[in-house]
Amino acid sequence: MQLHLSTWAEVETYLKTSKGIIMPIGSTEQHGPNGLVGTDAICAEFIAKGVGDATGALVGPTIPVGMAVHHMEFPGSMTLKPSTLIAVLRDYVGSLAEHGFQRFFFVNGHGGNIATLRAAFYEIYAENRALRGRDAPDLRCTLVNWWENGEVGRLSRELYQGREGSHATPSEVSVTQYAYPDSIKSAAMEPEQAPAGGFYDARDFRRRHPDGRIGSAPGLARPEHGQRLYEAAVGAISAQYRAYLAEQ
Amino acid sequence: MQLHLSTWAEVETYLKTSKGIIMPIGSTEQHGPNGLVGTDAICAEFIAKGVGDATGALVGPTIPVGMAVHHMEFPGSMTLKPSTLIAVLRDYVGSLAEHGFQRFFFVNGHGGNIATLRAAFYEIYAENRALRGRDAPDLRCTLVNWWENGEVGRLSRELYQGREGSHATPSEVSVTQYAYPDSIKSAAMEPEQAPAGGFYDARDFRRRHPDGRIGSAPGLARPEHGQRLYEAAVGAISAQYRAYLAEQ
Amino acid sequence: MQLHLSTWAEVETYLKTSKGIIMPIGSTEQHGPNGLVGTDAICAEFIAKGVGDATGALVGPTIPVGMAVHHMEFPGSMTLKPSTLIAVLRDYVGSLAEHGFQRFFFVNGHGGNIATLRAAFYEIYAENRALRGRDAPDLRCTLVNWWENGEVGRLSRELYQGREGSHATPSEVSVTQYAYPDSIKSAAMEPEQAPAGGFYDARDFRRRHPDGRIGSAPGLARPEHGQRLYEAAVGAISAQYRAYLAEQ
Amino acid sequence: MQLHLSTWAEVETYLKTSKGIIMPIGSTEQHGPNGLVGTDAICAEFIAKGVGDATGALVGPTIPVGMAVHHMEFPGSMTLKPSTLIAVLRDYVGSLAEHGFQRFFFVNGHGGNIATLRAAFYEIYAENRALRGRDAPDLRCTLVNWWENGEVGRLSRELYQGREGSHATPSEVSVTQYAYPDSIKSAAMEPEQAPAGGFYDARDFRRRHPDGRIGSAPGLARPEHGQRLYEAAVGAISAQYRAYLAEQ
Amino acid sequence: MQLHLSTWAEVETYLKTSKGIIMPIGSTEQHGPNGLVGTDAICAEFIAKGVGDATGALVGPTIPVGMAVHHMEFPGSMTLKPSTLIAVLRDYVGSLAEHGFQRFFFVNGHGGNIATLRAAFYEIYAENRALRGRDAPDLRCTLVNWWENGEVGRLSRELYQGREGSHATPSEVSVTQYAYPDSIKSAAMEPEQAPAGGFYDARDFRRRHPDGRIGSAPGLARPEHGQRLYEAAVGAISAQYRAYLAEQ
Amino acid sequence: MQLHLSTWAEVETYLKTSKGIIMPIGSTEQHGPNGLVGTDAICAEFIAKGVGDATGALVGPTIPVGMAVHHMEFPGSMTLKPSTLIAVLRDYVGSLAEHGFQRFFFVNGHGGNIATLRAAFYEIYAENRALRGRDAPDLRCTLVNWWENGEVGRLSRELYQGREGSHATPSEVSVTQYAYPDSIKSAAMEPEQAPAGGFYDARDFRRRHPDGRIGSAPGLARPEHGQRLYEAAVGAISAQYRAYLAEQ
Ligand code: NI
Ligand code: NI
Ligand code: NI
Ligand code: NI
Ligand code: NI
Ligand code: NI
Repeated sequence: MQLHLSTWAEVETYLKTSKGIIMPIGSTEQHGPNGLVGTDAICAEFIAKGVGDATGALVGPTIPVGMAVHHMEFPGSMTLKPSTLIAVLRDYVGSLAEHGFQRFFFVNGHGGNIATLRAAFYEIYAENRALRGRDAPDLRCTLVNWWENGEVGRLSRELYQGREGSHATPSEVSVTQYAYPDSIKSAAMEPEQAPAGGFYDARDFRRRHPDGRIGSAPGLARPEHGQRLYEAAVGAISAQYRAYLAEQ
Repeated sequence: MQLHLSTWAEVETYLKTSKGIIMPIGSTEQHGPNGLVGTDAICAEFIAKGVGDATGALVGPTIPVGMAVHHMEFPGSMTLKPSTLIAVLRDYVGSLAEHGFQRFFFVNGHGGNIATLRAAFYEIYAENRALRGRDAPDLRCTLVNWWENGEVGRLSRELYQGREGSHATPSEVSVTQYAYPDSIKSAAMEPEQAPAGGFYDARDFRRRHPDGRIGSAPGLARPEHGQRLYEAAVGAISAQYRAYLAEQ
Repeated sequence: MQLHLSTWAEVETYLKTSKGIIMPIGSTEQHGPNGLVGTDAICAEFIAKGVGDATGALVGPTIPVGMAVHHMEFPGSMTLKPSTLIAVLRDYVGSLAEHGFQRFFFVNGHGGNIATLRAAFYEIYAENRALRGRDAPDLRCTLVNWWENGEVGRLSRELYQGREGSHATPSEVSVTQYAYPDSIKSAAMEPEQAPAGGFYDARDFRRRHPDGRIGSAPGLARPEHGQRLYEAAVGAISAQYRAYLAEQ
Repeated sequence: MQLHLSTWAEVETYLKTSKGIIMPIGSTEQHGPNGLVGTDAICAEFIAKGVGDATGALVGPTIPVGMAVHHMEFPGSMTLKPSTLIAVLRDYVGSLAEHGFQRFFFVNGHGGNIATLRAAFYEIYAENRALRGRDAPDLRCTLVNWWENGEVGRLSRELYQGREGSHATPSEVSVTQYAYPDSIKSAAMEPEQAPAGGFYDARDFRRRHPDGRIGSAPGLARPEHGQRLYEAAVGAISAQYRAYLAEQ
Repeated sequence: MQLHLSTWAEVETYLKTSKGIIMPIGSTEQHGPNGLVGTDAICAEFIAKGVGDATGALVGPTIPVGMAVHHMEFPGSMTLKPSTLIAVLRDYVGSLAEHGFQRFFFVNGHGGNIATLRAAFYEIYAENRALRGRDAPDLRCTLVNWWENGEVGRLSRELYQGREGSHATPSEVSVTQYAYPDSIKSAAMEPEQAPAGGFYDARDFRRRHPDGRIGSAPGLARPEHGQRLYEAAVGAISAQYRAYLAEQ
Repeated sequence: MQLHLSTWAEVETYLKTSKGIIMPIGSTEQHGPNGLVGTDAICAEFIAKGVGDATGALVGPTIPVGMAVHHMEFPGSMTLKPSTLIAVLRDYVGSLAEHGFQRFFFVNGHGGNIATLRAAFYEIYAENRALRGRDAPDLRCTLVNWWENGEVGRLSRELYQGREGSHATPSEVSVTQYAYPDSIKSAAMEPEQAPAGGFYDARDFRRRHPDGRIGSAPGLARPEHGQRLYEAAVGAISAQYRAYLAEQ
């Protein structure tokens, strides 16, 4: 059930049986020679919808632009400053909490969002406590990264055998190819697998990783891989969501 | 051309011939008994893509949650505070300006966003001037509301004959029915056309407009109207975009 | 009754019979060759006082500096960033709401303030709701632009016959001449009526409108026009204020 | 020379011979049984204009609402939070610095503003340095309290002989009586001279000082005292302003 | 009793008999040729601990970096912007108020902090009132500068006979020599006593006071002076703290 | 070399050979029945000083209060909101960058700080880029948690054999016992090892972990363990710091 495709009366009915909502969050940033700028948002949105279908959970609107300060040397990358993203998350959760939502399950598509998301959860808890005191609702925020579960990990290792890397990976490119088969790109890549390594700011990132990839061989991506990865992710995350709701 | 479905290299190429980008902005808020919570975001995104296709312009990611403080008494509505939305717009435009974009054409789906968008444009100009001084790039932001043009206005009058209203209108519901035919809702509405009238805050809105509509008869919405409205909007706004780019 | 010329005990007495207050807001910005930098603040303050006298309403302190980012290429112009003006309005209304004021009627002298004022109203409603919940007072903010009513419009058309323009207009200059007859300026203007047209940021404004006027012929201003315009505005706005207070 | 009564061209001319500007700042707060809510703004504005006339300095718009958190238990009092006032001062000085002003001489009417003004000066210096680096203009901000100089002190002691007190003083009430002779108030006060003493927050202030006065006997105020105090203040502060401009 | 060296259960016990806490605040900034960068933090922390020992009061963590915008032309100086320091103080006091602390006694080591501290107190009172309304706890904040009391003043005059000055003073250097005898520095100073004088921003400070001292002769500092000054300060401030707690 | 115990001239000299600085950051929060409220700040400060001594690096002032929103149900806990801590870190790094520091090595004592620290690094990079553009200095921020290295991990497993847990651990309590032998606390604990488990906000934390420990048996702490852990941490982190400085 998607919030954007529901009426307010349907949401009112949903709230009678669940206080949970799934919140996809992605990023708008370079993803190497053949990856889409929207890769992280597409993966988060697509998988979150699958989880919503599998579990009956309501799925909120995707946050399309995340924290991508380090990608800003590549055209098309967009970023919220961490402080802005915290404000956005505070307003999202705060809005939904007014209606009675209490369990916020973020499906995240971008490693760069993790720290800011976690910081935001505490900003939210602090504001909830300041505004409502001992009567504050029992808000609980959590995040899962779609690629961090046993099922997706096993499949990625099987499919790419050490060439997954950490940015512009064949896994995430495959998922976007499955989701948007009309937007599959091909691009020469040299070397086939990019070198691994860390980075500091945006200039440093581009200096170390000139075509945008880190440790990955996204030329291996295939839409049929994407389907398998999608299904693995939906299965794993649906179980995580159910366990989360069942927590005392 | 959609930013999310492009590679960074394609964006780099695009920037060689255009400094313009189309930015859809919607809202996540109640739209009466049969309107979708995502109506404004869906309309803005759908029409913006059509304009992008017609003009060759790049279309950025949709801002799905806007300024809807006054809708917060209806379940499912979400809002950014105006100050948060200003920060988001500042970061969006600021990010894109780093790559050389200079013409920001917002296609807006929600009347409640207009004031904050316009305020944000000046926040952006002020920051651009403060940071870059006399060498600041010539940034220009503008907005069009998809329903405010002669073509759409004529069609709405023809189709609804005074029952369009101002919120949860048959026009916007029709566009969403055309965009998402699997999500057409039916709901009893009494009276068929809601009373018109203003409002102040969220409680006042709900007191005056208890089912969420203002002056409208959205039971008249039809997907085939949506197609005609969509085509009218794309035609009119494509012309507006071209004129905007041609401005000295 | 002016807040600045009252004691706190007089305000306490006033609050027993009215929850309304009139808030003048102007700007400090260039107004062409013969217009005063304080034009918008002077008009708003002067007319607001007249409305207060006519209706018995309390008139608060004038906000002298508004949102004038686009005028900053002309010496003497001052501006608050939109985010600052929102904070100021939030504090003004929040202060007065502590005493029991609930109806905030802004008399505005500057078109550039409108978007930020409207954005601020929702920031105020959101904060009121967040802090006080269902027990929040029923705050209502509205704005009128002193020149936007039938009476002033008719008189302006009669007096200037299409040479009013939209910035540094003969109407507003006339009102300041009536209010401050010792500060009437004369200046050569070429052409007599400036070209009309839009603008983006401050540099763009000055490039397009090099002497600061837009579409206007302020050389036509006369203090006796100012008196007639003032009286028309006070009459019209007094009626608007009374209707506003009477609203359910 | 008042900024509000000048044209932009006159300001441009002024800047050829001076980089200095006088900035009045007051407050909107209770001033005891017979003091006006606008006392501090009136005194600052009135004396600042006198200093402008005496020295030829440009006088900017009065900041009418200052930092008066501690007065909020008395109807009619208004306050900016310190953080808001800092933002306002930063925007005021920042705006004027764009035109070339470098010497900001605040004439202050309210003790409660002093700490925030001084904090703001460093916020301004920090931002100036961050934005412009080693090329930043040499901005200098200072403040004088109109009552803190030998001339006014001597006169107050002569006139009130230990009954001046520290809030709602006969001196400041006298100045407003001279400035606004039509708004002279009379009120019974018991005791004639209020007890002195400190305070913490607004509730504590009202608990300790129930009619709003601190240590003062404002029933002694007379408009003719106001004239003498005004003249003393203008003389003393004009000398301070000249010395300030002459500083290396 | 130091908060950092206590368990939470000990704090719980403490709160049964006292609502008071001592909060040291210093600065990290140049202190002339032989003064330590941490001088102000060291003095505040050291003396605050002494006061805690003498009075049984709980002593919170030292704020080591204060408002030192004007020292930024000297290597090693650090500063919080005034707006940041206000936020820090608001969070410190807000945290402790959640546990029931109501009396916040800041022992300050740096003149540059005074204005921002005082501004912050009102930010705190305003937030307390906004969040908790009439039921807000009776929070009271105050500050003492360790050198501003009769005992320390007399001793400084006796020891330095007019060569104390106002920055990088022999008194404060002596206290740090007593606190950290292994970190006593020697440096040539020419002249022995620096010239006095004011300053505006950081560049202006360095231009006027090139080695960082103002009016002082810190070559006179001795650890045994430090001991006497420390004891005088502890005695005087302990009495101030007791009087503060006893205030109605 | 400690910044607080150096003169500005010594810092100037240091900067001729190194652009690196070590920044300890802790927290002020409950640490179970026998742990000190200052545990995390004490560990970070103590170990950072050791690393400074071992490597010759300059050590900045400890940030004593971190992000501990989840500990606020225990008396004595203090927290900065994440947004405040970001502002503090931005000001710290920004101040030091003005003097030429470019390598910021945070030694962290508190798991709850990690997300906000990482978010802050990107806030800092974004501001550096916005203010200085392509000429921005090459700032690099990193963090190490003192307990996350092979040496400390091995020793903890040897000493506590699965009873380390994740909050109020015997390791951190031991380090504080070594650092402050006069403040060793004893307290009955039931059970000896607390249950493990996650948490959401502060109320949830206390509900799940009523005496403040998570999975730990801090009754096992001994000062002589503390010495060994300290030495292991200093050794490991000194190597990490040297490697960090050597990075290209
Ligand atoms: Ni990705
Ligand atoms: Ni709509
Ligand atoms: Ni105007
Ligand atoms: Ni006063
Ligand atoms: Ni000092
Ligand atoms: Ni710990």
